[in-house]
Amino acid sequence: MQARPLAIIDILRFAASAHATREIVSRNVDEPLWRYDYAACLRRAAQAAGMLAAMGVASGGRVTSLAWNTHRHFELFFAVPGMGAVLHTANPRLPDEHLVYTINHAGSRVLLLDRNMAATVARIRDRLEHVERLIVLSDRTCEGIESYEDLIAPHPDALDWPSFDENAAAFLCYTSGTTGDPKGVLYSHRSTVLHALAGGLSGSMGFSAFDVVMPCQSLYHATAWGLPFAGAINGVKFVLPADRMDGASLDELVRTEGVTFSGGVPTIWTMYLDHLDRTGGDTGALERVFIAGSAVPRDMAVAFDRRGVAVRQMWGMTETSPLGVVSAPTPALADLGEEDARERIWTRQGRMLFGIEIEIVDAQGRPLPHDGETSGALMVRGPWVLDHYYRSEESACDAQGWFDTGDIATIDRFGFMRITDRTKDVIKSGGEWISSIDLENTAAGCPGVKVAAVAGVPHPKWEERPILLVEAHEGVALSEAQVLDHLAARVAKWWMPDRVIFASVPLTATGKIDKKVIRDTYRDILAS
Amino acid sequence: MQARPLAIIDILRFAASAHATREIVSRNVDEPLWRYDYAACLRRAAQAAGMLAAMGVASGGRVTSLAWNTHRHFELFFAVPGMGAVLHTANPRLPDEHLVYTINHAGSRVLLLDRNMAATVARIRDRLEHVERLIVLSDRTCEGIESYEDLIAPHPDALDWPSFDENAAAFLCYTSGTTGDPKGVLYSHRSTVLHALAGGLSGSMGFSAFDVVMPCQSLYHATAWGLPFAGAINGVKFVLPADRMDGASLDELVRTEGVTFSGGVPTIWTMYLDHLDRTGGDTGALERVFIAGSAVPRDMAVAFDRRGVAVRQMWGMTETSPLGVVSAPTPALADLGEEDARERIWTRQGRMLFGIEIEIVDAQGRPLPHDGETSGALMVRGPWVLDHYYRSEESACDAQGWFDTGDIATIDRFGFMRITDRTKDVIKSGGEWISSIDLENTAAGCPGVKVAAVAGVPHPKWEERPILLVEAHEGVALSEAQVLDHLAARVAKWWMPDRVIFASVPLTATGKIDKKVIRDTYRDILAS
Ligand SMILES: Nc1ncnc2c1ncn2[C@@H]1O[C@H](COP(=O)(O)OP(=O)(O)OP(=O)(O)O)[C@@H](O)[C@H]1O
Ligand SMILES: Nc1ncnc2c1ncn2[C@@H]1O[C@H](COP(=O)(O)OP(=O)(O)OP(=O)(O)O)[C@@H](O)[C@H]1O
Ligand SMILES: [Mg+2]
Ligand SMILES: [Mg+2]
Repeated sequence: MQARPLAIIDILRFAASAHATREIVSRNVDEPLWRYDYAACLRRAAQAAGMLAAMGVASGGRVTSLAWNTHRHFELFFAVPGMGAVLHTANPRLPDEHLVYTINHAGSRVLLLDRNMAATVARIRDRLEHVERLIVLSDRTCEGIESYEDLIAPHPDALDWPSFDENAAAFLCYTSGTTGDPKGVLYSHRSTVLHALAGGLSGSMGFSAFDVVMPCQSLYHATAWGLPFAGAINGVKFVLPADRMDGASLDELVRTEGVTFSGGVPTIWTMYLDHLDRTGGDTGALERVFIAGSAVPRDMAVAFDRRGVAVRQMWGMTETSPLGVVSAPTPALADLGEEDARERIWTRQGRMLFGIEIEIVDAQGRPLPHDGETSGALMVRGPWVLDHYYRSEESACDAQGWFDTGDIATIDRFGFMRITDRTKDVIKSGGEWISSIDLENTAAGCPGVKVAAVAGVPHPKWEERPILLVEAHEGVALSEAQVLDHLAARVAKWWMPDRVIFASVPLTATGKIDKKVIRDTYRDILAS
Repeated sequence: MQARPLAIIDILRFAASAHATREIVSRNVDEPLWRYDYAACLRRAAQAAGMLAAMGVASGGRVTSLAWNTHRHFELFFAVPGMGAVLHTANPRLPDEHLVYTINHAGSRVLLLDRNMAATVARIRDRLEHVERLIVLSDRTCEGIESYEDLIAPHPDALDWPSFDENAAAFLCYTSGTTGDPKGVLYSHRSTVLHALAGGLSGSMGFSAFDVVMPCQSLYHATAWGLPFAGAINGVKFVLPADRMDGASLDELVRTEGVTFSGGVPTIWTMYLDHLDRTGGDTGALERVFIAGSAVPRDMAVAFDRRGVAVRQMWGMTETSPLGVVSAPTPALADLGEEDARERIWTRQGRMLFGIEIEIVDAQGRPLPHDGETSGALMVRGPWVLDHYYRSEESACDAQGWFDTGDIATIDRFGFMRITDRTKDVIKSGGEWISSIDLENTAAGCPGVKVAAVAGVPHPKWEERPILLVEAHEGVALSEAQVLDHLAARVAKWWMPDRVIFASVPLTATGKIDKKVIRDTYRDILAS
């Protein structure tokens, strides 16, 4: 068989040929809605590659984007790897310090930013060690920074894209920094294309050419779970919301553009559902919402289900490109009866996909039973799982290639996996473990609760005990007793939180509950 | 990212884990219906690999199967490549001479045969140069040949499957021999797994875990178009019809096993539809039928459509693993209106899939317009297209990697490709080309016609002229005038066949019209 390397640009070349007129619609910062198609996108990607080459970006060179979900960012997803360079997708919501760290660590010489990141960049510019060029992703200059449109304009819109080893690096993505400093992971052309093929299958995202896909997971967060690639391979229409992920903005795009598929972290969907509840709006043509990043509250799945939208929970991590498991139904599950089947779909992160092996092991590394009860350290392996972190000499995996995810999970006989906690978030009370995720999920089901966060803090007698932070829905008066009553009816007595605190829940730059902050803030609350 | 090789056995390992209890049901030669699941299939594949290893089959060694669509053959599809050996799937319908040629050419030391091939093997045994062992794929011995069941029984049902280069050979498939001697093509693990991933996408076969798939394309014909792999990756239930591809047998399986998806060459579907018409039967849960190998008569597509079954024509060849194009709908097509869209779906071989590039070129190799009118030599390229034939030193492709398919085609602006002829079957009449496929298709639309075959034979004045062979439906009285009237109203005058001959149409070993035989038989019919 032909030794043709897998190449990311071939995905866009395919879409531009087989689905030439299928649209890509994009919001932008301070610009009207943009609308074009795959064929035009490929032409502009060629121009962008021409621009970067003219700036001296060469094969293997790093380029950082500091950008939202827009068509220009989408173009860079193909242009940069297409020319053999590496796109580091920096997270604009990171604190300055982390931002500087990741851009320096990446070693990028060119930084492309959205207009509303200009102030941030001005602030950190002096600390960026390798950056020589700034480009603003806009139709006009911004505070002296040349615009993308001006810069790509002179370059030809057709390119003889180079061919190279499929193991060449394509993306550099950093973890969220939930448990420490963000860590860099290099995605290759091979891993990205395989991930895209598997991601389009029916047991995963199940895309068809008739889908209209609005990624609300950020393009800078693990390449928006590979949606640009899995979508383009299947010829979907894309709707890009820029940075406007509030309920009203999403609702508008869903209805006016006929969105059938969307995805993102739970916090976004809380806002969207909230907005619909407040306005009495409907979900238009929306069929499926894929949610990951943190556990999906059961009530969120139910709320979507009532509106005729299927929620598919996923689990993944930056280190797994990020697709790990998806909670898609199976005939074996259906045989349990509708009630049972739906309950499992709603409360599990998902089931195995071809290409990624999952296993749970005990402290000695021995495999544990797949009985849906026994929990252990979740290990993964496969062609889109990292082997080592960027710039680390050390392998991130054991001798058999297994990567320890840092998550604790159960696996049931249907192959469905459930995350009970992160290793670092597990609460050890008197030698027993309490699952902070289960407790959060139960608390989130209490009427009036918008977000619930559980963390373990030091306790003089029990080593650690759980405390619960609660954010109530706007205008709702909620008492500690109401929350405790709700929990008491549903969890074991020794799981009951020692404190209920009404406060706003701190989130990380990717919208996850920031338990480091909670633990730090309330470190001494149970000391006496 | 991890350097994990793509491996065929991982497909079955995945299915056995993620879809453990999903069934595989199989007819067999002289045995009752067999029924098991993926988990059991993996266990038996391990036993089969153990058996072959004990016989001295080593990495790279060739093994020939002479077998129908049964569960044992299915097991070998995983066991043989899984142990690093190569499965040559010989075609039991080949004439002795070709059979001997391919088995010798493959260099196989072990031959596994179905019971009803024992007489053939006895006849050719002396001429098989490398075969040392015979195994009958049965639950009992047959004419002194040891049975598969006896031989696998002592071997353990778990195996630490070896890991090796993904470019290692897995299957050896021979072309049909329509245009000359069958030519061998080696499929690798890499090409097979990529083909399976792409084949499961919605623009291709669109499998879901709820599908019940009955391959009526033979397992020995280009690995049944990769169905065992694309199906297992998606956890489908398989229904294997053995060699009983007659209408009544298929109808029974479709209804009793709940088949949703099937595929095969047009001749099989003629028999199936005929049977339903005669018995007044229905298509049960059947949703999609994939047809390829020869052009799908438009009337066949319409007949299925009337029964609520979607026909998807495909085009492919042994040299392309074989998936090339599939006639799946797109929004761009839907925009044309339902009538137009369906007409295109019914009369085109299909549209581009990710992974396989198609192009049409003129005699000088220059690309031709994709206007749906201009026809040229069809060229293909991609990771599941051959680079050279087995045991040939010569590359089968040009310097840019394009493989000349030997087919003539048009491509339209939607990316839909239509085969107008094979290069060798084109009829050159007075310097102009007549498409034998178009003419056949039109003739097949004449009421009463079961099969129509057109071939060009020498003509003293026009160089070549078409003749038409017609096989009428049973019990139908059809006259030459009826056929000619039907054609006259539909094709250009100079396309009208010079002779209409009522005779049975000769077919090749894969069920295609054998135009070599027609041309030979009627070589002199227009001579005077
Ligand atoms: N559906 C889910 N349910 C529960 N947790 C999830 C889910 N999806 C993802 N996660 C959590 O997110 C993690 C992956 O997130 P990501 O790669 O963005 O960085 P992070 O782990 O939050 O940050 P860091 O690795 O820097 O601490 C997983 O390991 C898991 O803990
Ligand atoms: N849907 C289709 N419509 C028309 N022709 C088709 C279709 N699908 C396949 N074919 C024909 O079948 C050929 C591939 O068949 P296969 O690989 O089985 O061997 P063959 O070409 O018939 O034999 P050989 O190469 O030995 O002459 C294609 O090149 C094409 O001519
Ligand atoms: Mg992490
Ligand atoms: Mg051929």
